Amino acid sequence: MKVNVHVSLKPGVLDPQGRAIHHALEGLGFAGVNDVRAGRLIALDVADDTSDEALDDMCRKLLANMVIENYRIEKVG
Amino acid sequence: MKVNVHVSLKPGVLDPQGRAIHHALEGLGFAGVNDVRAGRLIALDVADDTSDEALDDMCRKLLANMVIENYRIEKVG
Repeated sequence: MKVNVHVSLKPGVLDPQGRAIHHALEGLGFAGVNDVRAGRLIALDVADDTSDEALDDMCRKLLANMVIENYRIEKVG
Repeated sequence: MKVNVHVSLKPGVLDPQGRAIHHALEGLGFAGVNDVRAGRLIALDVADDTSDEALDDMCRKLLANMVIENYRIEKVG
């Protein structure tokens, strides 16, 4: 089973990587960019019988830092 | 307009970050994980009149390294 985990910073948390990307896009001449936030995408290939609880557990224990990050689990198939 | 750019390593490209995550998951006792690939997620907030070509250009010029990475543009709304 393919599972994508999207990890993004919580709103309000300072995002220096996103700011650097924003700045670089402006430097390259791209206008109309209002905001950039950087996050992580973790693509897992897990056994078909992996429970939602186990996936949740993986995110909370390792993949995301729950203090400053949110995660979203997307089952791809 | 909110746009998510998903950047992932091309198949076959070595992914040390993904391997480290895989190893850590096994160390934490999660069984049944077959593969882990790490990527980036870049959430852009751009002007509504930004063209698809401009978005594509941003990815090719800055957000993704076309030699080793693929990107996917997802318009969220």
